[in-house]
Amino acid sequence: MIVELINTGSELMLGRVLNTHQQWLCRQLADLGYVVTRQVAVPDTGSDIEQAVKEALARADVVIATGGLGPTSDDLTRDLVAQLLGKELREDAAVLAHIRSFFESRKRPMPERTKVQAMVPDGATVLHNPHGTAPGLAMEVKPNPFRPGSQPSWLIMLPGPPRELRPMFTDTVTPLLQQVLPLASRFVCRTLRTTGIGESVVQEKIGDPLQRWVEAGLDLGYCARPGQVDVRLAARGGDAERQVGEAEAIVRGLIGPYIYGVEDEDLETVIVRLLTERKATLALAESCTGGCIANRVTNVPGASAVLLAGLVTYSNAAKQKFLGVHAETLDRHGAVSKPVAREMAEGARNQIQADYALSVTGIAGPSGGTPEKPVGTVYIGLADPSGTIAERQFNPYDRETFKQVTTQQALELLRRTILSDSVVSPV
Amino acid sequence: MIVELINTGSELMLGRVLNTHQQWLCRQLADLGYVVTRQVAVPDTGSDIEQAVKEALARADVVIATGGLGPTSDDLTRDLVAQLLGKELREDAAVLAHIRSFFESRKRPMPERTKVQAMVPDGATVLHNPHGTAPGLAMEVKPNPFRPGSQPSWLIMLPGPPRELRPMFTDTVTPLLQQVLPLASRFVCRTLRTTGIGESVVQEKIGDPLQRWVEAGLDLGYCARPGQVDVRLAARGGDAERQVGEAEAIVRGLIGPYIYGVEDEDLETVIVRLLTERKATLALAESCTGGCIANRVTNVPGASAVLLAGLVTYSNAAKQKFLGVHAETLDRHGAVSKPVAREMAEGARNQIQADYALSVTGIAGPSGGTPEKPVGTVYIGLADPSGTIAERQFNPYDRETFKQVTTQQALELLRRTILSDSVVSPV
Repeated sequence: MIVELINTGSELMLGRVLNTHQQWLCRQLADLGYVVTRQVAVPDTGSDIEQAVKEALARADVVIATGGLGPTSDDLTRDLVAQLLGKELREDAAVLAHIRSFFESRKRPMPERTKVQAMVPDGATVLHNPHGTAPGLAMEVKPNPFRPGSQPSWLIMLPGPPRELRPMFTDTVTPLLQQVLPLASRFVCRTLRTTGIGESVVQEKIGDPLQRWVEAGLDLGYCARPGQVDVRLAARGGDAERQVGEAEAIVRGLIGPYIYGVEDEDLETVIVRLLTERKATLALAESCTGGCIANRVTNVPGASAVLLAGLVTYSNAAKQKFLGVHAETLDRHGAVSKPVAREMAEGARNQIQADYALSVTGIAGPSGGTPEKPVGTVYIGLADPSGTIAERQFNPYDRETFKQVTTQQALELLRRTILSDSVVSPV
Repeated sequence: MIVELINTGSELMLGRVLNTHQQWLCRQLADLGYVVTRQVAVPDTGSDIEQAVKEALARADVVIATGGLGPTSDDLTRDLVAQLLGKELREDAAVLAHIRSFFESRKRPMPERTKVQAMVPDGATVLHNPHGTAPGLAMEVKPNPFRPGSQPSWLIMLPGPPRELRPMFTDTVTPLLQQVLPLASRFVCRTLRTTGIGESVVQEKIGDPLQRWVEAGLDLGYCARPGQVDVRLAARGGDAERQVGEAEAIVRGLIGPYIYGVEDEDLETVIVRLLTERKATLALAESCTGGCIANRVTNVPGASAVLLAGLVTYSNAAKQKFLGVHAETLDRHGAVSKPVAREMAEGARNQIQADYALSVTGIAGPSGGTPEKPVGTVYIGLADPSGTIAERQFNPYDRETFKQVTTQQALELLRRTILSDSVVSPV
């Protein structure tokens, strides 16, 4: 199965935006067993897009193209593809009605130009776009003039905005692919997500014990991101399920406590689930993470049932006023210290009347460090019915990575504490 | 000038990492006037890399390839290119000495395999790598067997790790390109960032007035992201500066109030700059955005000088306790209402003693909507020395997009208010 991806957009060629579609689509496709063999990005010009589509159709069973389906003058993909494959464009009544109702429900006038998005090449399947106005399009290229004598190819066109492309891929492209181009052999892929352990240590611990499975065809991969290492186990064939299952059991036996989730599960999703199951509540007191923890927890639907409040107490005055941190503690130990982290957590728990309270105080940089407390120094506190703990961490990264890694460490401390608390008594 | 970029790496095809090289290199090259015309990513397999290099050399004046220069078994680029161009590989004494001293200075033994990185194809220029062991390589392909009868091409190979690639590009590739392939004409590119206006409306307003410049060669592009539309103006030639300048003036005349920044400037960066210049302080009271505003503002270095505190008051109890929102207001109007947004902003301003206080209360979804206040309804409040305002917005998107768009609207309300306040008097 040859799968190629074409990303269109002059802003990509000018380096104005990061091509997140490549990673996201390659990841989804690989996990389904359709590994992308080539990705191409070209500008929004007719000849470049046409050339890229022709070349991909000459090689691939599936070509996925992103962008160029919107209403503006640089959105050329729909017209070019229709022309290239000799198809007429017709206005699709259902798509037009969707575009109209999209604007009506937002009480905005419908610009005349948006109607062009209802034009559909003859024979194309419309992929519904509940999150925007440009539908996706799927076409079986049969016969494929660029690959004579071969199986027909599929050409799938998706809109550029990620919040439109992603649900469309999951809800309509995935089932379509599995129906029209089923994989010859079973493919099983499992990702185990770890935190609190480095990539080389993970590899040292599980590499040798899994050698026998790797030799039998298991694909073992690692992916390190700030504060996180993913272990990917994949296999093909009739035995894939068993191979991956055995490998997972071995990995869990060796590094189980570091595994917080599987597949795309975030640590914040795990936290909201654990707290919801226990009917427990959470309060946050953040300094250097500046709301990053609250922001991640509130990305999870249902967070409002467990997160009562988060206080971003950047100034010392705010730490005293809202959390009751003592002036003396701040004077004696400094705002970035274990005693202040403890008082912040305890203050948040008491003031907000939550079961658990997490606190963070540190130096995100780029300035503000001292020889004893260099940039990257951070204290994480946690108060719960059984008491208060605080730990020091050192995350000498750029500002945003520092916030992400520290948030990950704080949520992981909370996860382990929740799991070790057998019963949570109310405050 | 035709410039192509090849990124090698199986982890790219599996979607395990984001291809940051593409954006970074495309951006650097575009700003120098060498706009990349095509980017390709292929896995670390010999045939794929060879095919991609051959195809690129058949079209391009400059081909830049990343990755595949390291010491491991999947680092194939060096050998493949030498073979493809019929060049012998020789061990380069200076490179070998650098690798030795690299390990010595880190007090680590030098693995035998790393010596392969000292192999240099005949006639290639070595690009020194002060941050790693694999040097970059630059080769003039002369004659170019894949593009007979044309000018020779340049093939530039760079190591994969960003902290090695980036300084190497800046320090050695940039001067090399400017020396061996000087640009025939000047290139100017400018991006204007807008918020509060949709992509089609931007185009309706500026498309026709800029028609004359587009016909004269101006490249006009749009890029829509949640809560944001970028307008890109680019031109080449001796007249480029004037063309882009005139076009910018026209765009500013037509949609000036919506333009918050240029090039890569974020709205939060603008806010921190405006507040810092005015020595003014900020407080935040967030409900449905859940810390997203605080998180974005605190991503900006120097935010601690202007942001005093942010309160994420998810529960009604927290709104009352920390912000002094009246129980009666909550009862009569509901938590998601204009009066509550006003009281939140005023309460935050008073409690935190800040010059400006921004508040947000709304329904992020997916549940919690009513017929009068459907999911996506949000009220944004702003209190400053001259009084309090509140506006209703409707952002019916998925949860994370809702938070991003609402944050953008709140920061934009703050930006416009700061700019309209001639003098800020202290609280």
